[in-house]
Amino acid sequence: MKSLSYLLQKLSTLGQETLDQFNLGSSDNFALGAGRLCEALLQLSGEASSIVIAEEIIRQYQASDEAEKQQFFGYLYSKLGADTEVVAEAITRYQADGDQGSLLALGSACESPRLELLKTLNTAAGGTQALICMREDLHKLPKDNPARDVLDEELLSLFRSWFNRGFLELRTIDWRTPAWILEKLIQYESVHEIRGWPDLRRRLQADRGCYGFFHPAIPGEPLIFVEAALTDEISDNILELLKQHPPGDDDASPNTAVFYSINNCLGGLRGVSFGNFLIKQVIEHLVHEMPHITRYVTLSPVPGFRRWLETAVHDGLTSLDSEQQALLEAMQSGVEPGSPLRDSAELTKLLTSLCAHYLLKVKSRGNPADAVVRFHLGNGAILDRINWWADPTENGLKQSYGLMVNYQYDRKLMGANHEAYQSRQALACSSAVKKLAGQAPVSQS
Amino acid sequence: MKSLSYLLQKLSTLGQETLDQFNLGSSDNFALGAGRLCEALLQLSGEASSIVIAEEIIRQYQASDEAEKQQFFGYLYSKLGADTEVVAEAITRYQADGDQGSLLALGSACESPRLELLKTLNTAAGGTQALICMREDLHKLPKDNPARDVLDEELLSLFRSWFNRGFLELRTIDWRTPAWILEKLIQYESVHEIRGWPDLRRRLQADRGCYGFFHPAIPGEPLIFVEAALTDEISDNILELLKQHPPGDDDASPNTAVFYSINNCLGGLRGVSFGNFLIKQVIEHLVHEMPHITRYVTLSPVPGFRRWLETAVHDGLTSLDSEQQALLEAMQSGVEPGSPLRDSAELTKLLTSLCAHYLLKVKSRGNPADAVVRFHLGNGAILDRINWWADPTENGLKQSYGLMVNYQYDRKLMGANHEAYQSRQALACSSAVKKLAGQAPVSQS
Amino acid sequence: MKSLSYLLQKLSTLGQETLDQFNLGSSDNFALGAGRLCEALLQLSGEASSIVIAEEIIRQYQASDEAEKQQFFGYLYSKLGADTEVVAEAITRYQADGDQGSLLALGSACESPRLELLKTLNTAAGGTQALICMREDLHKLPKDNPARDVLDEELLSLFRSWFNRGFLELRTIDWRTPAWILEKLIQYESVHEIRGWPDLRRRLQADRGCYGFFHPAIPGEPLIFVEAALTDEISDNILELLKQHPPGDDDASPNTAVFYSINNCLGGLRGVSFGNFLIKQVIEHLVHEMPHITRYVTLSPVPGFRRWLETAVHDGLTSLDSEQQALLEAMQSGVEPGSPLRDSAELTKLLTSLCAHYLLKVKSRGNPADAVVRFHLGNGAILDRINWWADPTENGLKQSYGLMVNYQYDRKLMGANHEAYQSRQALACSSAVKKLAGQAPVSQS
Amino acid sequence: MKSLSYLLQKLSTLGQETLDQFNLGSSDNFALGAGRLCEALLQLSGEASSIVIAEEIIRQYQASDEAEKQQFFGYLYSKLGADTEVVAEAITRYQADGDQGSLLALGSACESPRLELLKTLNTAAGGTQALICMREDLHKLPKDNPARDVLDEELLSLFRSWFNRGFLELRTIDWRTPAWILEKLIQYESVHEIRGWPDLRRRLQADRGCYGFFHPAIPGEPLIFVEAALTDEISDNILELLKQHPPGDDDASPNTAVFYSINNCLGGLRGVSFGNFLIKQVIEHLVHEMPHITRYVTLSPVPGFRRWLETAVHDGLTSLDSEQQALLEAMQSGVEPGSPLRDSAELTKLLTSLCAHYLLKVKSRGNPADAVVRFHLGNGAILDRINWWADPTENGLKQSYGLMVNYQYDRKLMGANHEAYQSRQALACSSAVKKLAGQAPVSQS
Repeated sequence: MKSLSYLLQKLSTLGQETLDQFNLGSSDNFALGAGRLCEALLQLSGEASSIVIAEEIIRQYQASDEAEKQQFFGYLYSKLGADTEVVAEAITRYQADGDQGSLLALGSACESPRLELLKTLNTAAGGTQALICMREDLHKLPKDNPARDVLDEELLSLFRSWFNRGFLELRTIDWRTPAWILEKLIQYESVHEIRGWPDLRRRLQADRGCYGFFHPAIPGEPLIFVEAALTDEISDNILELLKQHPPGDDDASPNTAVFYSINNCLGGLRGVSFGNFLIKQVIEHLVHEMPHITRYVTLSPVPGFRRWLETAVHDGLTSLDSEQQALLEAMQSGVEPGSPLRDSAELTKLLTSLCAHYLLKVKSRGNPADAVVRFHLGNGAILDRINWWADPTENGLKQSYGLMVNYQYDRKLMGANHEAYQSRQALACSSAVKKLAGQAPVSQS
Repeated sequence: MKSLSYLLQKLSTLGQETLDQFNLGSSDNFALGAGRLCEALLQLSGEASSIVIAEEIIRQYQASDEAEKQQFFGYLYSKLGADTEVVAEAITRYQADGDQGSLLALGSACESPRLELLKTLNTAAGGTQALICMREDLHKLPKDNPARDVLDEELLSLFRSWFNRGFLELRTIDWRTPAWILEKLIQYESVHEIRGWPDLRRRLQADRGCYGFFHPAIPGEPLIFVEAALTDEISDNILELLKQHPPGDDDASPNTAVFYSINNCLGGLRGVSFGNFLIKQVIEHLVHEMPHITRYVTLSPVPGFRRWLETAVHDGLTSLDSEQQALLEAMQSGVEPGSPLRDSAELTKLLTSLCAHYLLKVKSRGNPADAVVRFHLGNGAILDRINWWADPTENGLKQSYGLMVNYQYDRKLMGANHEAYQSRQALACSSAVKKLAGQAPVSQS
Repeated sequence: MKSLSYLLQKLSTLGQETLDQFNLGSSDNFALGAGRLCEALLQLSGEASSIVIAEEIIRQYQASDEAEKQQFFGYLYSKLGADTEVVAEAITRYQADGDQGSLLALGSACESPRLELLKTLNTAAGGTQALICMREDLHKLPKDNPARDVLDEELLSLFRSWFNRGFLELRTIDWRTPAWILEKLIQYESVHEIRGWPDLRRRLQADRGCYGFFHPAIPGEPLIFVEAALTDEISDNILELLKQHPPGDDDASPNTAVFYSINNCLGGLRGVSFGNFLIKQVIEHLVHEMPHITRYVTLSPVPGFRRWLETAVHDGLTSLDSEQQALLEAMQSGVEPGSPLRDSAELTKLLTSLCAHYLLKVKSRGNPADAVVRFHLGNGAILDRINWWADPTENGLKQSYGLMVNYQYDRKLMGANHEAYQSRQALACSSAVKKLAGQAPVSQS
Repeated sequence: MKSLSYLLQKLSTLGQETLDQFNLGSSDNFALGAGRLCEALLQLSGEASSIVIAEEIIRQYQASDEAEKQQFFGYLYSKLGADTEVVAEAITRYQADGDQGSLLALGSACESPRLELLKTLNTAAGGTQALICMREDLHKLPKDNPARDVLDEELLSLFRSWFNRGFLELRTIDWRTPAWILEKLIQYESVHEIRGWPDLRRRLQADRGCYGFFHPAIPGEPLIFVEAALTDEISDNILELLKQHPPGDDDASPNTAVFYSINNCLGGLRGVSFGNFLIKQVIEHLVHEMPHITRYVTLSPVPGFRRWLETAVHDGLTSLDSEQQALLEAMQSGVEPGSPLRDSAELTKLLTSLCAHYLLKVKSRGNPADAVVRFHLGNGAILDRINWWADPTENGLKQSYGLMVNYQYDRKLMGANHEAYQSRQALACSSAVKKLAGQAPVSQS
C-alpha cells in the first residue's frame, strides 16, 4: 500500500525504531493500516511526532473512498470504545461513595479513547476542518449503522466545546474581503441563490451589510453569515430587494436593516447553534457603527404554509366559501409574477389570514409548526407583518403562495419575549397579525 | 447590594419582565446574588442576553474578596452538581443495554450544570482569562475544601479541550513584540530572573531567540515561552550566557541553539501541558528559518541534586573517603563564584559522578526522581553532559552545587528515545555521562 | 452655486472669519469658484484647515464635467505659473555668482505655485488617487491646449518622486487577495483579456503566479502586475497556456516561470516606469520562495510584425519567390486556428525568419523598432526563440501572423546584457534566432 | 580595500562584464571607490541591479568615518552638480521663448545628477532612513563647507516631497505598541525626560494619550509624537501631571486633554514641519474617539523668559521698585521647589505680568520672540493662562522662573486665529493675560 511506505519515508526522522515499535508495515487493508496509525497516535499522544502521524491519518482518510471511510468509522466504533471494565468499576465506586468526585471519575471512565484520538487529530494542520468534514461524511452512513450516532455525538460534543461562542469572531464581509471567503458565500447561500460574482458584488455594496462568524482555527471559512439590506422602509418584496440596481446618488438615509438571508455553512457543524447569537450580535454592531439604523427586521420565507394549507383543505379543516375555493384553485393552477390575481383584495385577505393562522395556531409538539417562527420568536423577535405577493417566484409560490413575513427585533423587548416564549410558549406578534389570524376561514376545533 | 441594582440598570434593555422572572432582586448575600445570576444564566443559555449576565457574574466575581469567592465556589459545588437521579437512571439503562449509545448518555448525565455555566461564562468578553484566574483562585482554597478538587478537575477538562494544541499559535517574541506581552516575560520568567527592560532587551537580541505559544482568545498572554541563545558551542556556564554584552561585529556564525529557560505562564492552566510541544516546534521552526543551526541543546538546572546528596550522605548511601568528605564539607560551608574549589579536579569528579548517578539511577515510582530529567528524556532528548561550576550563584549552589546539565535534542533519535522511555523507561544518555555514573562513590544496593 | 454653500457649511468650524477672509462667496463660474478655493489653499498651506479645503477642491473637481475641468486646467495654467520676475532675478544672480547655491535658487524660482497646490491637494483623503485621475483627464485635452504639456510634466515629476521604487511594495496576488483588488486585474488586463471571475480564478491557481507593485497611499490599486505560468517547459503556445484546466494531481514539478502578461494599471502614472523593476523583483522573489523554478522566460507578442511585413513587401524590401508570395497571401486571406497552413514547413521558415529579421534588424532611431524587444532586451533579457502558430487567434494573426517570442531572463547575464544594450545597442539573442534572421528573404540594403 | 572586493563578490550575479565596465576595481581612496559606485549607479539607474549598488553605497557610507563622509560629500558636491552648459542653454531658450514649457525645462536643467543619485539610493532596503541620517551627518560639517548647504537643501526638498502630509499615518501609541517603537519615545523625548520604562509605562496608561506620525517607508520610527494627559481641569503644574500614580478607581471622567510634550524625532528631517498638523489631527481624533473630551490645551514651557528678563533688567528696560528688585534677586539666588517665595502674591504678580509682556510684546523680526508662542499662536491657539510655580525644577527655574503657559485650541476659532496671525500678526489671548501684560513694570518705549 503506497500510502504507508510514504509514511515510512516521511516518518524517518522519528527513527526506524519508532516505526518498528508500532509495526507500521505494509497492509492491504485500509482500516487496518489506518487503525495501526491510530493506535500509534494514541500511544504517542502529547508528543511532537504525534502531529506527523495525525497528519498522515487525515491524509489517508481524505484520499480514501466511501467504502474505506465506512471501514474506518467501523474501526473507530468497534475498537476504540471506552473500557467497559473501567466503567463498571467506576459505577461501583460511585454507587459506594456517591460524591461528586466519584461522579466525575465515572464521567471520565465513560470517555472513549476515540475521543482522545479525535482531539489529537485536531493537532494536525487543517485538523479542525478535516474533523468537520469527517462528521459530514458520517451523516452519509446508513442510519442503522451503529457507528453513526455514537461518533456523531462525540464529534458534536467536541465541536460544541471548541466552537464556544467566546472563541468566535464577528466579521464584516464586504468587497474588501479575500476572494476565497467570498466564494464561500456563493457556495453556501441557499435561501436566495447568489447568481455569480456580479450578484455577489451587489449584495456587498454600501446599502447592504453582510456579517459572519469565524473561528480562528479555520479562518477562511465563515461558519454562518447573514445578509441585510439597509433601507428606509420595512421591505415587503424580496424581488425588489434583490434587484441589482446600484445605490442611487440621492443620499438616501436608511433607518432600517432588513435581514433577508441567514445561512449555516458547514454541514459538519450541524447542531452547534450560531444563528441566534449572530443576529443579535449584528444588531449590537449596527447600534454602534450605524446609529442611524433604528429598526431591525427580517424578510423571511414561510416554507411550510402551502403544504399545510393543501392538507388542511383536503382534511376539511378549512371553511372556504365557493369564491374563496375558486381563488385558491386559481393560485394552485399556477400564476405568473404579473398575474392579475395579485390585485385581488379577497385573495389577499384569504391567504394572509390563513397564513397568520398557520404561523400562530398550528403547532407541532406544543411549539409552532413553522421552523422559521420557532427560530425568530424563540430569539425574542415579534411576528410583525405578513406580506402579500412578496416572493412571486416559482419557489415562493410553491412554498407559501408568494407570502413572506417580517419579524421585528426590538432590543427593549427581546429578552422578555424570549422568556415568555421559553416558559409559556407565548408568541409575540403585532395586533394586525393577531387580528388576521382571527379572520382565517378555518373550522373551529 | 450595589452590584445588583447596577445589574438591574444594565439589563434594562432585556425588559423588566426578564428580571422579575429571575427575581434578580436585592440580596445581602454575595453567593446568593451571584447564584441567582448563575441560575438566570443557565436558563438563558444560548441567548444573546446571556452574555450580559455572564459579564456581570465575572465582574462581581472579580470584585469579590477571598471569603466571597469561597462562598461562590461553595455555591457552585453544592447547588450545580449533576442530577443524581438522572445519573442513576442512566446507569440502569447502560447496565440494561450495554451499548456505546447508553454509555455516552451516562457520560452526559455525569456532566454537571456547573460545566454548562462555565462554558457560558466563557462567552463574556475576557471570559477565558477570567476562568483561568478562577482556577488559580481555586488552588488557594484549603486542600480539604470539597469544592476544590471537583471544580479544579472540571475547569482542567475544559481547558484541555479549549487549549488543544491545534488551536495554539507559535510566535517569535522579539523586540518588535508589543510591550504588554514583553512585560509578561519579565513577570513569568522564573528560571533565570529578568532584571528589568535592559536585561529583557538583551535576551531578545539577534543572537538570542524567544518563542511562545499563544491562544487566540487571550492574544496578549503567552501561555509558555522558551528562551534560547544562538552560539557556536554547547554552553557550559549560565553566567557567561546571560552576560549582557551585545553581539560582536565579528559576524559570528552560530550553529547551536541553547535553550536555557522554559516557563509556563498561567498558574490557572497547570496540568495542560505545552512544554514538550513547544521545544519541538521551536526546533522545527529553526530547521526552516535558521538552517545554519544544527544542534539543539539545553542548559538545564538540577534542582534536587544537593538535597538528595545531603540525604544520601546522612542515610549512609554514599561511600565517600575522607578527602571527598572534606571537599563536600568545604562546598557546604559556602563558596564564592571565584573560589579555588572550582579548580579541584577531585571535587569536580566527585560531584559530577554523583550527579550522573542521581540523574540516571535515583528513581521515584519507577521514573527518574529528577523532574527535569523526566521532562527532557520523556521528550526524547539525550542526557549529554554534566557541567561543573556552571551556575556558581547562591541559588545554583543551593540546588546543585553549581552543576548544570546539557540535554541534547537529536531530531533523528527523538522519536525512538521517547518510545524507549515511555515503554521501557530507557534513559538515553551519552557514554561519558554513563561512565561518570558508574564512578560515583555510592554504596551498591 | 450649491457646492460652495455646502463648503460654507462644512467649513463652519474654521470660523466665519476665515471664509470672509477669502471671500469664498457664491460664484457662478466653476473655475472662478474653484480658483478662489485654490488661492485659499495656498495661503493656508501647512494648516490643518487646508485639508478641508483640499478635499473640497477635489470633490468639486470630481463632480465637474469636461468643460469645467478644462476651465480648471486653464486656471491652473494661466494663474498659478511661476513668478517670472523672481525667475529673472534668480537668473541674474546665478549668472553673477555661478555657484551651486544660486543654481538651486534658480531651480526653486522655476517651481510654480501650482506645484505647491498639487502637493497640498495630496493631503486630502484620497488625494493621491485624485491627482492620478487628474493627469488622466489632462491627457484628454486637445494636444494643442497649452496647459496640457506643462501640467502633465509637473504631475509626472511629482509622481516620479512619490512613486520612487523605494516606496513600492511587491505583493503576491492570489485567491486570498481582497476582491476589490482582484476586480482591478480584470479591469486592467489588456494583453490577454480575463473573461470573468472563473477565468481570473484559473490564473491564480497553484500553478500560476501573479505579482504586483502597490503604493501605501493607494493600497487598493495595483500599479502594475505580471502574470506567470509555472510549467516544466518553455511554453510555445498561448492558447494552451490559458486553457482553464485545473492543475492535475500528478504532482507536476515545474521548473520554469513563463511570464505571459504584464500590465500597467493607472493611465495617470504613464511615464513612471515600473515594469523592469517588477519582472526582476519577481524573479528574485521566486529564487527565494520557489527554488525549484530555475528558468524565467516570457511568452510575448510581436505587435508590429505583420504591419511591418506588409509595408516591406509593398515597398519591395523583401525578396520572396512566388511560392513564398503565395503562402503569404494565403495567410493574409485569413486562416482558422486549425488551418493546414500550420503544418507548412516552408511557411514556418518564411515567417519565423522574417520575424527574426524584424526583431533584430529593423530599427527606429537607432533602437529596435519593436517596443517589446526594446523593453525586454533593455532589461537584459535574451531573445531566445520565435514560436510558430503560437497565437492563432484573430488578434494574434493580425499582429504577427500568430507568432510569439520567448525572451529569457538569465540572472547571471542580465546585468551585462543590459549594459551592452545601453552602451552599444547590442542585442542579446540565441544563435538559433540569429541564424534565422540571416535566412530571411529580404533585400540587402 | 575590503568593501569593494566584497562588492565584486556580491555583484557576481550581474556578470563580470558589468563590473569591468565600471572598472569597479580596488581603490585605496574611499570617496574614489564610492564615487565609482555612484557613477555606476547613475548609469544603471532604473535597473534592478541598481538596487544592489545602492545598497553597497549605503553600506560603505555607514561603515565610513567622519573624514570619509566629508570626502564623500565633497565628491557629491564637486562631481555631481548640474551641467552648467545645459543650464546656460536652457536660460537662453527660456529668455527667447518665455513660455511655461521652457521654464519647466530650465527648472529641470537646474536639477543635479546628485538628486537623481539620492533618489536611486532611496530604492535600497533601508534607503530612506539612511538618507535621513546622511542629512544629519551633513549638519556636522563645518558651516563654511560649501557642500553643506547645497546638499542640505537638495535632501530637504526630497524629504518635503516624500514626507507629504498625505503619506503620513497618525497612530495611537500605547502599551500595546511594539517595544522597538516605544524605546524611541524614551530616546527622543526632550521636553520632559522619560526616566526609563516604568515612567514610559505611566505615560501610556488609560488617563494619558500618546500619538505620533509615521511614514510607511520607516514604519518603526515615529517622526513626531505628542503626549497628553486626560484630566478634568486645565493642569497648572507639570510635576503634578508627571507624578507616577496610577489612575484611581474613582471612575474619573476627564473632559480636558492637556498636551504637555511634543517632540520631533529625526534630526535629518529638520525643516519638514509636522507639528501643527499633528496637534490638530490628534484633536480631530479625540473628537471622534473620546467625545467626552471637550477642551484641548497645552502646558508649555517659556524657554526664553528668564534670559530676556535678565537682559531687560540689565539694559534698564524694566521699571522695578526696590521690593520687586529684591524679590527678583531672591529668585535669582536659587530656590527650592518648596520655597516660601511660592506664596508671595507680589512676586507672583511681578513675574506673571512680566511674562505676559514678554510673550505678547517682545518681538523678533516682527513676530513674537518666543518660539513656543510663534508655534501655538501660529497654529491658531489662544494664549490662555500663565501659571505660577508650574515647573519649580532646576530647569524650569532656569528657563522661566518656573512659569508655564496654557495655550488653548478652540476648534471653532482656530482657523480665524491662524488667519489673523498670518495676515496681521494678531495674537489671540485671554483677557486675563492681556490685562496682566498691561501691568508689567516695564519702561514705555
